[in-house]
Amino acid sequence: MTSVALSFPFPPVDDVESFTRRVSPLLEARLREAVLDLPVQMGPIDDALRLAVGLEGRSGRRWRPILTLAAAQAVGGDVDVALDAAIAVELTHTASLALDDLPCMDDSLRRRGEPATHRLIGPAGAILVAIGLLGRAAEFLGRSHDGGEQAREWGDCFGFAGMAGGQAVDISTGGGCTGAARRLYRGKTTALAAFALAAGARAGGADPDTLELLRRFGRDVGWAYQLVDDAEDLAEDRAAGRKPGGRRPLRQGARLLDRALGSLQDAPGITPEGALLLDALASEVVRLPSAVSLDGRTASC
Amino acid sequence: MTSVALSFPFPPVDDVESFTRRVSPLLEARLREAVLDLPVQMGPIDDALRLAVGLEGRSGRRWRPILTLAAAQAVGGDVDVALDAAIAVELTHTASLALDDLPCMDDSLRRRGEPATHRLIGPAGAILVAIGLLGRAAEFLGRSHDGGEQAREWGDCFGFAGMAGGQAVDISTGGGCTGAARRLYRGKTTALAAFALAAGARAGGADPDTLELLRRFGRDVGWAYQLVDDAEDLAEDRAAGRKPGGRRPLRQGARLLDRALGSLQDAPGITPEGALLLDALASEVVRLPSAVSLDGRTASC
Repeated sequence: MTSVALSFPFPPVDDVESFTRRVSPLLEARLREAVLDLPVQMGPIDDALRLAVGLEGRSGRRWRPILTLAAAQAVGGDVDVALDAAIAVELTHTASLALDDLPCMDDSLRRRGEPATHRLIGPAGAILVAIGLLGRAAEFLGRSHDGGEQAREWGDCFGFAGMAGGQAVDISTGGGCTGAARRLYRGKTTALAAFALAAGARAGGADPDTLELLRRFGRDVGWAYQLVDDAEDLAEDRAAGRKPGGRRPLRQGARLLDRALGSLQDAPGITPEGALLLDALASEVVRLPSAVSLDGRTASC
Repeated sequence: MTSVALSFPFPPVDDVESFTRRVSPLLEARLREAVLDLPVQMGPIDDALRLAVGLEGRSGRRWRPILTLAAAQAVGGDVDVALDAAIAVELTHTASLALDDLPCMDDSLRRRGEPATHRLIGPAGAILVAIGLLGRAAEFLGRSHDGGEQAREWGDCFGFAGMAGGQAVDISTGGGCTGAARRLYRGKTTALAAFALAAGARAGGADPDTLELLRRFGRDVGWAYQLVDDAEDLAEDRAAGRKPGGRRPLRQGARLLDRALGSLQDAPGITPEGALLLDALASEVVRLPSAVSLDGRTASC
């Protein structure tokens, strides 16, 4: 029987806010460099690129690169050393969205209220934007601390055993799968979340045990995020109030978040302040509804 | 006035043959590891993957990874140290073919006499195969010598300023472009050829000047290859004998090859035997017709 609220008192919310306020300008400036300082101008592709990355229009919450920077700080490093890795994480995420939205994938017309990339420059353009973004990610990752190891894990993250494999399962089964296929399916979401934490930890100089601990933390947070996100979609899809639906995934999400937060407690390679910050950020990321039952009890998450 | 045959006597053909015979089993074994030793089985995608990489059916000539290994040897390194980089080069090439053949790109139905990847597993499957191959390339590159620098240049190679940018220009202009757009268009072919040489040289421990020299060598050879390849396609397309067509690109290809071969002569960072081997390999790659006019004279190429 566990309760997130009881076992881990959160730091005041403005700890998250002040961290985010501090790192966001760094992230946005480096992202602009990554996307706008290209050696060539490509007209409509440039425009679509700016929108896809969120330099124009609405951006995503940037929670993955923010966690990358927080991981670097939590292991005693400076956020600056993880900035290139954080950019690689966000560009990889953006590339995956441009591909996911394609007519032959999820066939989504809009993204964050704007036309999906393929609606602006066609499927071929969207594919090239995704490939170009991955190329840019490799460039940034390669120049970060321990770039070879970063590239190795990054390739594993977006490749067959990670995001691409997960998307393949998603397309072929719609998520209705079990066992090894289910684990692969989860990789669509969890691989990048795990890499976001590991990349920051590695850039920050983490020892191998701490690296693995934060990788697992990222995987749990990533899957909890997906469960809650799916439950929200499901709730919206259902006729108002007829079926309560989505409680079980939410409880599973709460348990995963709980496990993730618990794993950081007293970890020797992580500063206490860093653990508190990661806890608070993860709870913001997962956005559990205010009252979710854990094992039959109500916990404030 | 230059003549390839006069200025650079080739080593006996079996120098190329013996090198290729020595490195091919190494390449094929490592390629099998890259493609078959995946942590997950994905049914039809696995089958399409084996065919795309040429582990079944016909493979390409593997000239890019062979040049990678030759570059490593030419700067005094061992071919073994460049094997991971060579695999990354070949996987990147294969990924680009899977994408180029898509209906929204070149819409090719067949590749090396077999169905194109998208004809076997659909466009979404082909895109995921390409992404997965790039991921695998990143893994292999990351674990090679100086993996961070390799990843940085590799990202530049396949991204907006390289292969993806070149394909974007190709799609939007059909190659009919000038100036900066023309240079970008060439990157579709030249970026990977340049990287193939640079990656091998870097893995072999080349100094910066030699690295740049071999990068340029690769770029020239890559573009010469493309010019000859395009000329052959053009010749096939034309009604037999009515128009001679394709002489000008062939002459340009001969000049580029000549420049490339000349650049290696007396280069301090390259062994004389290595220069001869690279010369011979490049001449095999470009496959100039036996008599092509250079500046009005006939040179044996």
